[in-house]
Amino acid sequence: MQDKLIRFGVSMETALLGRFDRLISKRGYTNRSEAIRDFVRRELVEEGTHNGDTAAFGVLSFVYDHHVRELEARITGFQHVHYRSIVSASHVHTDHKNCLQVIILNDKAAKIEEIATKILSFKGVKHGRLSLTLSGKEI
Amino acid sequence: MQDKLIRFGVSMETALLGRFDRLISKRGYTNRSEAIRDFVRRELVEEGTHNGDTAAFGVLSFVYDHHVRELEARITGFQHVHYRSIVSASHVHTDHKNCLQVIILNDKAAKIEEIATKILSFKGVKHGRLSLTLSGKEI
Amino acid sequence: MQDKLIRFGVSMETALLGRFDRLISKRGYTNRSEAIRDFVRRELVEEGTHNGDTAAFGVLSFVYDHHVRELEARITGFQHVHYRSIVSASHVHTDHKNCLQVIILNDKAAKIEEIATKILSFKGVKHGRLSLTLSGKEI
Amino acid sequence: MQDKLIRFGVSMETALLGRFDRLISKRGYTNRSEAIRDFVRRELVEEGTHNGDTAAFGVLSFVYDHHVRELEARITGFQHVHYRSIVSASHVHTDHKNCLQVIILNDKAAKIEEIATKILSFKGVKHGRLSLTLSGKEI
Repeated sequence: MQDKLIRFGVSMETALLGRFDRLISKRGYTNRSEAIRDFVRRELVEEGTHNGDTAAFGVLSFVYDHHVRELEARITGFQHVHYRSIVSASHVHTDHKNCLQVIILNDKAAKIEEIATKILSFKGVKHGRLSLTLSGKEI
Repeated sequence: MQDKLIRFGVSMETALLGRFDRLISKRGYTNRSEAIRDFVRRELVEEGTHNGDTAAFGVLSFVYDHHVRELEARITGFQHVHYRSIVSASHVHTDHKNCLQVIILNDKAAKIEEIATKILSFKGVKHGRLSLTLSGKEI
Repeated sequence: MQDKLIRFGVSMETALLGRFDRLISKRGYTNRSEAIRDFVRRELVEEGTHNGDTAAFGVLSFVYDHHVRELEARITGFQHVHYRSIVSASHVHTDHKNCLQVIILNDKAAKIEEIATKILSFKGVKHGRLSLTLSGKEI
Repeated sequence: MQDKLIRFGVSMETALLGRFDRLISKRGYTNRSEAIRDFVRRELVEEGTHNGDTAAFGVLSFVYDHHVRELEARITGFQHVHYRSIVSASHVHTDHKNCLQVIILNDKAAKIEEIATKILSFKGVKHGRLSLTLSGKEI
């Protein structure tokens, strides 16, 4: 079942509206409501993931040198310790010695950050980023 | 003269609208239009300042140790070289040896970033941040 | 073959060094060199991905409502148009109506951003984030 | 009195060191130690300002339309309520109807964020950003 849609009015200065329309057309939106809903969701996610207790999804991506001794075993072993928080992992060989690994996590925001911070500290893990989002039903 | 206001309809799922209303009330907004206009402006500023050629305003704040020899003279001297890009500077004594300086700049975004990067590299300048915004008439 | 390691000296104030040591121990690093190499890599990635022409990897994660008519077909169809830029995609069912999809991309930074922006504008795609990184050999 | 400097060794792969040297020369640093100290300080500020209880300095910059009725009085009045947290304010006329105001705040990080969020919600305040930093003695 889809959520019921409610319609409400928004007032905006002519000039601002013109800029808004150009911006969303550049980004590929076909109507204002869709763009505004996305702007609202972005603010909700920022607010929500700010709180460590929020149930969240995390996508951790990191580049590492698979020639570093024991690194793969260490990364895999660490994930097994936290297997309840980890949904899946996939990886890509970026060149003859480096890999990109992408791990999807599902837990409280603070727990996800803790796991990510630890993996990024491993010797041989060169660069990484964590993106947090909420499960779709809260946005 | 104020810009003419245009009113248009936005449709949003009931649940999302409920979360939107709670978010903006928490942030102190008193109506939805004002919040939506601010969300739109934030996206416009992000898009605009991404382009180095945009005329922008910058606020550079940085903490420095005023005991470092010649540092104040160097900071001031450098600003004089770029005086056309600098609107004003103010500073605060944060403790017996450190200062916080805040410089307001007005130039193309890329030029503002170049000046800021240079100042932040000075020995004795400990930490700084640059915020870019557009002059009010583009937002 | 591993890169040859070079050793050089760094001087730091006692108090700053104490704070540095506490920070990296909290983040799980076991030696200063490893932490400093990671800080350097982070700055290199920021600088590198700032340039649209850089060959980069992107990880795009987004949450969408799979009940929106034709959305899955549209997302998949669009990826096929850009299949040369897309390495792999995986997805997770976050609840009965929402999915989290994670796409790994490999192309110039500007092209990756263009693809990501377009997908995020699709109706039913609720929230997403793009992380850019470089292939390991540049960092 | 200056802090005593301690010297320690850092090991880095030849290729990474070459990229590090090019990066810092591009940013205007004249030696590696100064760049590394700045990278360390940036991480400390990020970690520190993440905690709402930390004593911090904030620089809030925002653009507003000074033709909006009562807005200036409201901004000024609100600052007086929080005068203990506010160090100074300066402002710039960006065009015939808009102003850029820059407020320097000194309080706990969470309190600074609360004040900033409220001001940014005022009708007529178009866009703003808050930068947090620590007083120099913690970095």
